Amino acid sequence: MPQSAIALMSGGLDSTTLVWKLKPDVKVLLVDYGQRHRKELECARNICDELDIEYKTANLQGLNHFIHSGSQSGDEQPPEGHYTELSMKTTIVPNRNSIMLSIAVGWAVKLGYHDVYFAAHAGDHAIYPDCRAEFVNAFSHAMELGNAWSPVVVHAPFVHMTKADIVRMGHKLGVPFEMTWSCYVGSNLHCGKCGTCVERKEAFQLAGVEDPTIYAEV
Amino acid sequence: MPQSAIALMSGGLDSTTLVWKLKPDVKVLLVDYGQRHRKELECARNICDELDIEYKTANLQGLNHFIHSGSQSGDEQPPEGHYTELSMKTTIVPNRNSIMLSIAVGWAVKLGYHDVYFAAHAGDHAIYPDCRAEFVNAFSHAMELGNAWSPVVVHAPFVHMTKADIVRMGHKLGVPFEMTWSCYVGSNLHCGKCGTCVERKEAFQLAGVEDPTIYAEV
Repeated sequence: MPQSAIALMSGGLDSTTLVWKLKPDVKVLLVDYGQRHRKELECARNICDELDIEYKTANLQGLNHFIHSGSQSGDEQPPEGHYTELSMKTTIVPNRNSIMLSIAVGWAVKLGYHDVYFAAHAGDHAIYPDCRAEFVNAFSHAMELGNAWSPVVVHAPFVHMTKADIVRMGHKLGVPFEMTWSCYVGSNLHCGKCGTCVERKEAFQLAGVEDPTIYAEV
Repeated sequence: MPQSAIALMSGGLDSTTLVWKLKPDVKVLLVDYGQRHRKELECARNICDELDIEYKTANLQGLNHFIHSGSQSGDEQPPEGHYTELSMKTTIVPNRNSIMLSIAVGWAVKLGYHDVYFAAHAGDHAIYPDCRAEFVNAFSHAMELGNAWSPVVVHAPFVHMTKADIVRMGHKLGVPFEMTWSCYVGSNLHCGKCGTCVERKEAFQLAGVEDPTIYAEV
């Protein structure tokens, strides 16, 4: 366990489980990239307050006009139903993990911390190449070289776990899953139909853990 | 020469020479991180307008409160005289190149471009580890892996050149050096005393090229 670390947190169940595992020796980086599902930021802040963990929000809305695209911050609707390769691709914000991790590493260097964590998991690999172990290793190597005066290592401890594995781990740790947010649609309840809602439901079922989420449509 | 590329540009003589070399098949990324020397952004825009090159400005001032430090965007004064190891270190914005390059790569992915360029050179290596060839190679490798659907290569073609070599090259290419900006102090003329001014003067002298810069103090 690190002395002090930075963790990227979205407010979803994966990154919340990660923060729960690292607490109390962690500071949290939230990223506001103008996501439609603003509720996830609110959930993340509530969880950090509950844990009395310091967080900072990086406002990247100034990048929207030229980088962001697809259904998470653009005009496109998020895909419904089970993720297919095509529908998952529309949720990609180009190079998002590199941008967020670079900022987290910058903050770590400023604080003199040596570890940055994020919650990439095996279910993301097929479509998001920046959630794969080989990306994490290559990126971490670059961060060590690029900050040779204060090298930082990037960790993705869930990279070989499924979302169901994470639910199981979070359940054992006592993570308050009802405080987390997955839905991409952005209303007040989880829609129950979009790709992330379907994935969330399925993870609880596979893990054999009761799902505390209230879905608008079951 | 790439079909279409993104280049990071500061408005200094190194990145201006790079853009001149890549023109017209290049788009330019400027980064506003609240630098004291705002004049460099103005110079960069004027140069892009002169070349009729499209540029975008990434506004990262929202990161200031937790990442930026040192003399370039904080309250500390920039060091005067020749750069020493210590005085150069105060000009470091933590993990700056990774942050800027990640954004440039994101823009490249969005546009379907495959190449990102920046003007790190040999004079930067001693103090800025993220200007060294081994960092560039490691970071580029991570960008290829992390964007496997649209891999991007990061290039630093001046990484083994000195600033004097760049002045020589720029002179041959016809770069209007009088339009470029190096000074970190941030008044209307180059101060002639800060580390970058001293470096700039020296580069022209070593290159045997007339220095068109008007310095406040010679």
